[in-house]
Amino acid sequence: MPSRHLDAVLAQVDAGLDQSLERLFALLRIKSISTDPAYADECRKAADWLAEELGGLGFAAAARPTPGHPVVVAHGPEQPGPHVLFYAHYDVQPVDPLDLWDADPFEPRIVERAGRQVIAARGASDDKGQMLTFIEACRAWKAATGALPLRVSLMLEGEEESGGKNLPPFMRANAAELKADIALVCDTDMWDRATPSITTMLRGLVADEVEISAADKDLHSGMFGNAARNPNQVLAEIIASLRAPDGTVTLPGFYDDVAEISPELRAQWQGLGFDEQAFLGAVGLDTPAGEQGRSVLEMLWARPTCEINGMSGGYTGDGFKTVIPARASAKISFRLVSGMDPAKIRAAFRAHVESLLPPDCTVKFTPHGGSPAITVPADGPLLRRALAGLSAEWGKPAVITGSGGSIPVAGDFKTILGLDTLLIGFAHVDDQIHSPNEKYDLDSFHRGIRSWVRVLAALAE
Amino acid sequence: MPSRHLDAVLAQVDAGLDQSLERLFALLRIKSISTDPAYADECRKAADWLAEELGGLGFAAAARPTPGHPVVVAHGPEQPGPHVLFYAHYDVQPVDPLDLWDADPFEPRIVERAGRQVIAARGASDDKGQMLTFIEACRAWKAATGALPLRVSLMLEGEEESGGKNLPPFMRANAAELKADIALVCDTDMWDRATPSITTMLRGLVADEVEISAADKDLHSGMFGNAARNPNQVLAEIIASLRAPDGTVTLPGFYDDVAEISPELRAQWQGLGFDEQAFLGAVGLDTPAGEQGRSVLEMLWARPTCEINGMSGGYTGDGFKTVIPARASAKISFRLVSGMDPAKIRAAFRAHVESLLPPDCTVKFTPHGGSPAITVPADGPLLRRALAGLSAEWGKPAVITGSGGSIPVAGDFKTILGLDTLLIGFAHVDDQIHSPNEKYDLDSFHRGIRSWVRVLAALAE
Repeated sequence: MPSRHLDAVLAQVDAGLDQSLERLFALLRIKSISTDPAYADECRKAADWLAEELGGLGFAAAARPTPGHPVVVAHGPEQPGPHVLFYAHYDVQPVDPLDLWDADPFEPRIVERAGRQVIAARGASDDKGQMLTFIEACRAWKAATGALPLRVSLMLEGEEESGGKNLPPFMRANAAELKADIALVCDTDMWDRATPSITTMLRGLVADEVEISAADKDLHSGMFGNAARNPNQVLAEIIASLRAPDGTVTLPGFYDDVAEISPELRAQWQGLGFDEQAFLGAVGLDTPAGEQGRSVLEMLWARPTCEINGMSGGYTGDGFKTVIPARASAKISFRLVSGMDPAKIRAAFRAHVESLLPPDCTVKFTPHGGSPAITVPADGPLLRRALAGLSAEWGKPAVITGSGGSIPVAGDFKTILGLDTLLIGFAHVDDQIHSPNEKYDLDSFHRGIRSWVRVLAALAE
Repeated sequence: MPSRHLDAVLAQVDAGLDQSLERLFALLRIKSISTDPAYADECRKAADWLAEELGGLGFAAAARPTPGHPVVVAHGPEQPGPHVLFYAHYDVQPVDPLDLWDADPFEPRIVERAGRQVIAARGASDDKGQMLTFIEACRAWKAATGALPLRVSLMLEGEEESGGKNLPPFMRANAAELKADIALVCDTDMWDRATPSITTMLRGLVADEVEISAADKDLHSGMFGNAARNPNQVLAEIIASLRAPDGTVTLPGFYDDVAEISPELRAQWQGLGFDEQAFLGAVGLDTPAGEQGRSVLEMLWARPTCEINGMSGGYTGDGFKTVIPARASAKISFRLVSGMDPAKIRAAFRAHVESLLPPDCTVKFTPHGGSPAITVPADGPLLRRALAGLSAEWGKPAVITGSGGSIPVAGDFKTILGLDTLLIGFAHVDDQIHSPNEKYDLDSFHRGIRSWVRVLAALAE
């Protein structure tokens, strides 16, 4: 039983924390900004650094080429028990506006903020700090016992922050090699500072761009106003038609495949003590806008939505121009929950728009990706063991949460490799990821490593 | 009776046409682009040129300073009969994109287009060519008879194309000096190539910008979608609410002060033979979009409208971002007809928007000007005389038309100086004003001068 080694491994983590931090700092100094071609060499450097570190831990590791930045793949030795595939990303967001940073974003340091010790640097939380919690846990197992408690593979990508399209083809091309029993992803938050969580529900996404055209040129509203169709008006009417006064989405069949959450899950979520007022108040809001009669958590985690992400038509600069534009367009997305088919929702949306087109109007649609929602069965044995490992480290029960957002790689694990994903992370909502002065709590890093030590042991039971 | 001199004055026009064209070309060579500060000296040069020409014709003329470009004011000697104040503008639109011009826009030439001789240059039609039809008519009267047939003043501005705000204060400051019996404006089209017209109805305008705000920052639609108010959606619902399915504007009281046109006017407009299909077909449209059961001419000339001139919110660049924007905005204008009060319409619009604001939303309004509609009484003696003068020149009855657009100076003449305006012009819809390859038919210029010779005689009867 791996658990008999736990105390030794955890002691190893505590004793080696300074060295773990040194390694994290070395990785944070590499400017692996994936979206900017000027930093392509830095991305390669980060990939090579990881392959070398993992090689030193006994993994068969290599930075593998793609048409974009490399994917680091590493395989530990065969072991009995479940085989886990760990995913994280080594690329980071750009740092501008640089003048809003307190210090060089690529010179990591420990500072005190709001009474806590934090690691300040670009990527400290998203995702280099989170990634190293897992790798340092593997190192501690190896140092204390000479081996990992189960078979571990890793896949670390470099295009998560740049919308790179190279990972799914890479996974398809190497599907046999990447096969495992479950995927682990470390890119999410704890429920709060004291409560670990595993995210088991991620909403899916259908994104579509719609462009309405009428006249073959922009018109003067004096010469044509009242007689010529105005695409701005048409588009606004289409958008307005998407939501009913009670906040539900009006597309025919939109809710046909949406199941109500179980009474157990509803009870658990009610027990989380989520403060709706505080959540909305933090961004200057007060009143939930969506479906009436449902809690905010349910709206976000378990109900689909339609959002107008962008809208544009006619003259939008300074001053005023009395134009009737030739066209107007909107970027519209639907967040999906388990059971909803992205293709079916896209088709329903397009049919709805076409049914509302008045004379003289044409419509052009441009798809911008679609992915189904992800749900990990709440009664799976690996999920239960992982929850137990986390609960032991934090001294209170880990909770199961949903997420209103999408993590496309979880969908790819399911569709390409047939794997469920456990989303376990130690970040906090105030980590300022993607923003100036990103940080990762020192406690997240230290206890994150300890958490993975326990989760690996638990999964190996 | 001035009419006894008519043949001599018209013969003078014909004999002097080449010299009239030379003077027009000299003015067209001056690059008086008012909106670009780099051409301020050219604007002054055009004003000085006009003052000097008018001085040579016996006017007391000067280029008068304003905070922007000068206003040329000229007064002819006292005469019995009505005193007319002629308005035109000496500034022109920018010329970009320059590569779409067949030749240098400031090197005027006579070329043949579609079988007609035309004057090609920036400003050839709008408004230097139209302006000189009047000045050359004055010159012919002076050359042939030694005097004008009635008292003439001129006010020629240099900021019509740049939305300059300096003319109304100038008119207020010099109201006593500028007082006359009627204003004449030469900035409009003929009904068709064979039919002269006087425009007696101009729609007014109320322009407002509306900005809807909700959260205090842009939000991620995964984290907040369904729970947070989306200003794009709110704005679309407000815009959609402005029009009923039958094409009428829904603002309470919007039509309260709108009178139906007289049966006589309706009959006259029906007699114009306006081709709705050709009008809409020229811009790629087929079906009138406005109030059902009314002709297109009535919709454009005698009915108010609401148009969404610009609309913008959230991410509108390439690709897709799943954002819920903090704010969304629209530029909305109302075209008004006679009897409607711009202040009342603006207030009704704002009250309507505020009545639809959901929780968590605030609204900011930015006014962008308002002017009432202008209607010249169809039975006034000066209008009847001017129609007769035009009809004599063109050999067919001149028609009374409306215009869907606004000519703010006509409103200023009414409100500041108490003057009705006769809008008489010789331009054509294919003159490409504001566009590359602007032109003015040589026939417009020649017979425009002859028309003013006759109209001045008729007004003096």
